[in-house]
Amino acid sequence: MEGSIIVGQSGGPTAVINSSLAGVVKTAKDRGAKKIYGMLHGIQGFLDGKYVDLSDYIQTELDVEILKRTPSAYLGSCRYKLPEIHENTEIYEQIFALLEKLDVECFIYIGGNDSMDTIRKLSDYAIIKGYPQKFVGVPKTIDNDLAITDHTPGYGSAAKYIGTATKEVIRDAIGLAYDKDIVTIIEIMGRNAGWLTGAAALAKGEDCPGPDLIYLPEASFDIQKFTKKVKDLLKKQKSVVVAVSEGIKTKDGKYVCELGNDNGYVDAFGHKQLTGTATFLANTIQAELGCKTRAIEFSTLQRSAAHLASRTDINEAFAAGGAAVKAAFEGDNGKMIILKRVSDDPYQCTTDVYDVHKISNVEKLVPKEWITQDGTYVSDEFISYIEPLIQAELIPLPVEGIPRHLVLDLTKK
Amino acid sequence: MEGSIIVGQSGGPTAVINSSLAGVVKTAKDRGAKKIYGMLHGIQGFLDGKYVDLSDYIQTELDVEILKRTPSAYLGSCRYKLPEIHENTEIYEQIFALLEKLDVECFIYIGGNDSMDTIRKLSDYAIIKGYPQKFVGVPKTIDNDLAITDHTPGYGSAAKYIGTATKEVIRDAIGLAYDKDIVTIIEIMGRNAGWLTGAAALAKGEDCPGPDLIYLPEASFDIQKFTKKVKDLLKKQKSVVVAVSEGIKTKDGKYVCELGNDNGYVDAFGHKQLTGTATFLANTIQAELGCKTRAIEFSTLQRSAAHLASRTDINEAFAAGGAAVKAAFEGDNGKMIILKRVSDDPYQCTTDVYDVHKISNVEKLVPKEWITQDGTYVSDEFISYIEPLIQAELIPLPVEGIPRHLVLDLTKK
Repeated sequence: MEGSIIVGQSGGPTAVINSSLAGVVKTAKDRGAKKIYGMLHGIQGFLDGKYVDLSDYIQTELDVEILKRTPSAYLGSCRYKLPEIHENTEIYEQIFALLEKLDVECFIYIGGNDSMDTIRKLSDYAIIKGYPQKFVGVPKTIDNDLAITDHTPGYGSAAKYIGTATKEVIRDAIGLAYDKDIVTIIEIMGRNAGWLTGAAALAKGEDCPGPDLIYLPEASFDIQKFTKKVKDLLKKQKSVVVAVSEGIKTKDGKYVCELGNDNGYVDAFGHKQLTGTATFLANTIQAELGCKTRAIEFSTLQRSAAHLASRTDINEAFAAGGAAVKAAFEGDNGKMIILKRVSDDPYQCTTDVYDVHKISNVEKLVPKEWITQDGTYVSDEFISYIEPLIQAELIPLPVEGIPRHLVLDLTKK
Repeated sequence: MEGSIIVGQSGGPTAVINSSLAGVVKTAKDRGAKKIYGMLHGIQGFLDGKYVDLSDYIQTELDVEILKRTPSAYLGSCRYKLPEIHENTEIYEQIFALLEKLDVECFIYIGGNDSMDTIRKLSDYAIIKGYPQKFVGVPKTIDNDLAITDHTPGYGSAAKYIGTATKEVIRDAIGLAYDKDIVTIIEIMGRNAGWLTGAAALAKGEDCPGPDLIYLPEASFDIQKFTKKVKDLLKKQKSVVVAVSEGIKTKDGKYVCELGNDNGYVDAFGHKQLTGTATFLANTIQAELGCKTRAIEFSTLQRSAAHLASRTDINEAFAAGGAAVKAAFEGDNGKMIILKRVSDDPYQCTTDVYDVHKISNVEKLVPKEWITQDGTYVSDEFISYIEPLIQAELIPLPVEGIPRHLVLDLTKK
């Protein structure tokens, strides 16, 4: 018998963030946790007093299985940054009072960089004030930009989606291009890190040429050189497909999307809201080369397409959730679960715990040597790194032809 | 032993157009066709003398099986309208000379409305000139706008994709919407017919509220009423998801997407920025209601996402291809294969042949009575009609984690 735990989800959704939640619930249950609470909409909802007793909602083994196949945050997510601990102790006291009230021993937070920042602050505060609760983070982000961990749960499924969808878009374009050239620009998420955009290279294989050009935000983007490249490619082929990150910038640091559209919307973390890189480039090519162009954004589906999730990713997300509970119950505090690649071939991966201070607020970019010299593709090393992460499927459970999800029905209890 | 046949694909790709091709090849082979030719890029490529002997390329049973799981036109497609038969007999003589040269008895064309127009003209010309070839069409379009046939191969898979993707987008938005409202506008293909947009309703179920509003092109669109609807919905929920057809028009017949382009906005390079319907509406809502909005276009994936195809659709497409070969060899001419729904519950469907003159150039729209009175949703009858078409899956064959396709490698022979 262990004490009670509380778990929350935060940041942008992924296809497997609920698999981590399922892992948390499973291990907590197996270890006999007194209560398993879920914060609604992360720490922000918790501060509003919103939480549930998960045993009222995730009850059967079938529930757990469907939860693993359900995209987006089952508990609801938030984008909420805690103040520094010296800035506003009230808010911290409020949180710890709630934890005391619920008699919670372990606090598990599934999220990305900003969520690990939350774990860091809460564990620091607990240590300083002598509170007994343990805080452990479970990595989650399609962006794969967390430090130390080999990769992040959520990335493999997003990469599998991007590789597959890119391949289908390429087939579509090749099938249609005959008397007229078609240039397709695919815009992929990832403001600063090109991990997702590089995954478009997965489309390449015996049966597909893959994208012709791939532009990551780590390399500066030159519109003239780009137009020239496309023009040259069109001399030998009818369809050209280009994958670009939403965050590509020109040499002087300007976002390409802003060249076409100067809207300055900023989110709670000061991130600029980017849209329209593909549209801008498609318009440019159309104007410069006079050919038919198409701008495609993979949109929120790249993080929510659980119907195309990687089984490897689902399993690792599940394992990371369970490992976090184990670590917290065994006394770890201010830690994040990391994935350690033990072997490349055959691929083997285990979990470990790591000091969250060394992870939060550090952004892992694609290494320069994994981008080709002219900045228009990723290297074979990149593909070798990513390939094991997209292997195998966990087929959705279709009901009436549409994948079934487990959803939190607050009227159910 | 039968004579030789030639088959071509035309118009916009679908996820199952190759399943029809597989059906053509299989039945032609089974009946002992002398030669099975494939036109490259439809009648347009054929006129350029481009065709292959398919026995060089589709050889094994495994090839046929993978072809059924390969999206887009294996043979290449075209968008080419033949002149009226009295306008340019030269072009017709050119085609028939090629058919004579290849000793082709049957001409099978897999396509939509324009392709059936091709079948009509070629069969008319053959009859008038006393040429012996038989011309039979296989229906194919995600738009489902062909007359007489209960539905078209390609529609079920597109509908399954739209229903699933809409559900995942809804989950994503619900998971994130907490302190701020999020309005998501999904733009779906179908300029005149709302069959695809209505399929967004498939997302609705025990575990999903479905889209809040659905706007088909068959009903006129009122921007003020729409904004008011969204505003009212935001009083009781944080996330509002709207599905709109790319072709919705205002009462005076103006495309909504053109309203946005009317402002003549030009980017820094002097290029006109073309916005879609969803982007225009998202911008409108953001400006009017001040909330976060998101515009999502399902893009070419709605017609190419073979990874989420409907098995029912794949099987019907395959059967339609086979039925066309059978009909042509048995003397049918100027016909299209139609799908006949024999029973609703349990769903049963067979093929039949029908005079192509009564089908080509007729556009089947969603019946008015299948759209709710205020024009913001589809009726239960619509959903009952569509549900059988999306049932069951034909799982892609992933190689290295990405679905494998069969592609025409012209260097292979």
